[in-house]
Amino acid sequence: MKNLLFCAFNKNYQETMLIPIACNGYSIFFNEDCYHYLNKLLSEKRHSKLFILVDENTHLHCLPAFLSNIEVEIDPEIIEIEAGEAFKNIDTCNGVWDTLSQLGADRKSIVINLGGGVVTDLGGFVASTFMRGIDFINVPTTLLAMVDASVGGKTGVDLGSLKNQIGVINVPLAVLIDTSFLRTLPTPQMRSGLAEMLKHGLIYDADYWNKLKNLTALEAAHLDRLIYESVIIKNTIVTQDPTENGLRKTLNFGHTLGHAIESYFLLQKDKKDLLHGEAIAVGMVLEAFLSAELEGLPKNELDEIAQTIQGIYENVYFDEADIEPIMELMKYDKKNSSGRVNFSLLTKIGRSVIDKNADNVLIKKAFDFYKK
Amino acid sequence: MKNLLFCAFNKNYQETMLIPIACNGYSIFFNEDCYHYLNKLLSEKRHSKLFILVDENTHLHCLPAFLSNIEVEIDPEIIEIEAGEAFKNIDTCNGVWDTLSQLGADRKSIVINLGGGVVTDLGGFVASTFMRGIDFINVPTTLLAMVDASVGGKTGVDLGSLKNQIGVINVPLAVLIDTSFLRTLPTPQMRSGLAEMLKHGLIYDADYWNKLKNLTALEAAHLDRLIYESVIIKNTIVTQDPTENGLRKTLNFGHTLGHAIESYFLLQKDKKDLLHGEAIAVGMVLEAFLSAELEGLPKNELDEIAQTIQGIYENVYFDEADIEPIMELMKYDKKNSSGRVNFSLLTKIGRSVIDKNADNVLIKKAFDFYKK
Repeated sequence: MKNLLFCAFNKNYQETMLIPIACNGYSIFFNEDCYHYLNKLLSEKRHSKLFILVDENTHLHCLPAFLSNIEVEIDPEIIEIEAGEAFKNIDTCNGVWDTLSQLGADRKSIVINLGGGVVTDLGGFVASTFMRGIDFINVPTTLLAMVDASVGGKTGVDLGSLKNQIGVINVPLAVLIDTSFLRTLPTPQMRSGLAEMLKHGLIYDADYWNKLKNLTALEAAHLDRLIYESVIIKNTIVTQDPTENGLRKTLNFGHTLGHAIESYFLLQKDKKDLLHGEAIAVGMVLEAFLSAELEGLPKNELDEIAQTIQGIYENVYFDEADIEPIMELMKYDKKNSSGRVNFSLLTKIGRSVIDKNADNVLIKKAFDFYKK
Repeated sequence: MKNLLFCAFNKNYQETMLIPIACNGYSIFFNEDCYHYLNKLLSEKRHSKLFILVDENTHLHCLPAFLSNIEVEIDPEIIEIEAGEAFKNIDTCNGVWDTLSQLGADRKSIVINLGGGVVTDLGGFVASTFMRGIDFINVPTTLLAMVDASVGGKTGVDLGSLKNQIGVINVPLAVLIDTSFLRTLPTPQMRSGLAEMLKHGLIYDADYWNKLKNLTALEAAHLDRLIYESVIIKNTIVTQDPTENGLRKTLNFGHTLGHAIESYFLLQKDKKDLLHGEAIAVGMVLEAFLSAELEGLPKNELDEIAQTIQGIYENVYFDEADIEPIMELMKYDKKNSSGRVNFSLLTKIGRSVIDKNADNVLIKKAFDFYKK
């Protein structure tokens, strides 16, 4: 299975018809529909200026194809930011705000964010706050951004090592998912996105989990469909809970510890940064252990989850000295309040519960389980 | 009239009952009602932490009285920023975000912004973007912030010399106007606020303009009532036009040139910074001239406006070389689009029109009129 995603695009990858998904306030379009929608919008809405935000990678690998598909009267201005989570901060926003201002952006301008989650989250925040909000469209180019950042209207940047601490909820005009961008995506990035898809199965849909788990047995051509179903699951959860007080918190499964681990590795100069999905993969194994201890997740399902995830992702090495600071970082998670660390856990595969606590002793045991 | 505001609080200043004003999504409370509301809210809503944002001035002059009026179980944390428009920027936001984070703010925390427009605009933006939005309450302590920033849900900071370029629309839980804070406000600051009150009369309510114009003839005790009426006028305009496509643009009277003048003086190291209202006062005289030339504002009303305003505010000196760069700065006004500079002008006192253009020759003539 580790190698499966290499061959995902060998043939017939667009065999299924993926009709647009209606989210709260905007729609998600797929593949050729993206450009029909976009060209119609740009010709009808007559924005004063068109800006395309890219990073170094999407500038090189995605922008040429994207530009070849759009028909506009006005020349787009390209704004490039540095690639990577380390640049998802207010400094980068300052640079983009300044550039927009210098290039004469006004309230009737539009920004298209072409890139992974850093570009769409940051670009969404910049557009939502420039002149108190201008139009923007997100075009996720990574699997992670397609299945995760595409739904929910979250925009934002990190504050120091704290992820997404600064941001607003604001929806784009539309999200355009063109899965052909995945052809240039490195395998680790594909695996990073897969983590969120696995999560969607674990928290909400056992059938979907089983499909992913048995991916080797499927035609690789089905990846488009799997992405589509992942977006449907996330959208179903989000639209049922717009204020994020209940069901939506289940999306946090694997993220309480996962986010802290991701932040910790980003902070440690001598450790290799983890991709978001790589950290979440660890977080899901740890929190599946907590689920078994606290919420009755059956032992065989715990083992199935651990084996599946640890079969896909390289094991991450944790030193004894790493555990305490990771637990300390969890306290800053946005999902918490009044100093309580809240976990979303599983009762079985496909079913989850929210607002659960675990003590540090049990969390340490979870790391022992992961290491075995 | 120049000296009138000195004595505004000599007696009976709270003689009128000012019932709360319902705005779009929140209410504005006055004087003793402020603390009834706030103490009820704080006891019922059980926020995890209470932060009060102040600047050096309000820390000294307003915070002690404010604290003496509130009853809370949790000790508030005080966050101080430097006073003045020069600090209304993203750097200051960064400092406040960091401090909130370090002091353990979470999604259930609340921020009370106690200060002038810089504190309420910046604090509103910080709260609206911290963890994608936490509760906040604005307590304007200057006349300007009471009659202007209190309505409309605008938050934000400047980008370089461009005013309010970064921000979001988001409403506070409430606005609390305690006019007793004005007792410590310096006279120039009182006059700065008066400019927006005069504007409210000019664009929407000739009777209100006349009341203000003849302020010397009134009991000074009526200031509370005049503030209240000013808030009512702005709220009436804003609630009729939530998307800011029509009527609300009339609030921009005096601001197209006024904002540019304010920015220009802030940029020039050898010129004394103008207070917002001082710049808007100049802008109103200039734009009243444009109104007479372009929109039929009667000559006698133009003279009445110029004499009244120039009777209150010190004349600002403009060099020939100042005019061009001021006109250049106007292009960056958020109210513009597609490179067009839009003015809101008067057809007569109390009536205004929007989206009007004026050429540079006429604008130069307006400066000549102002200088006379």
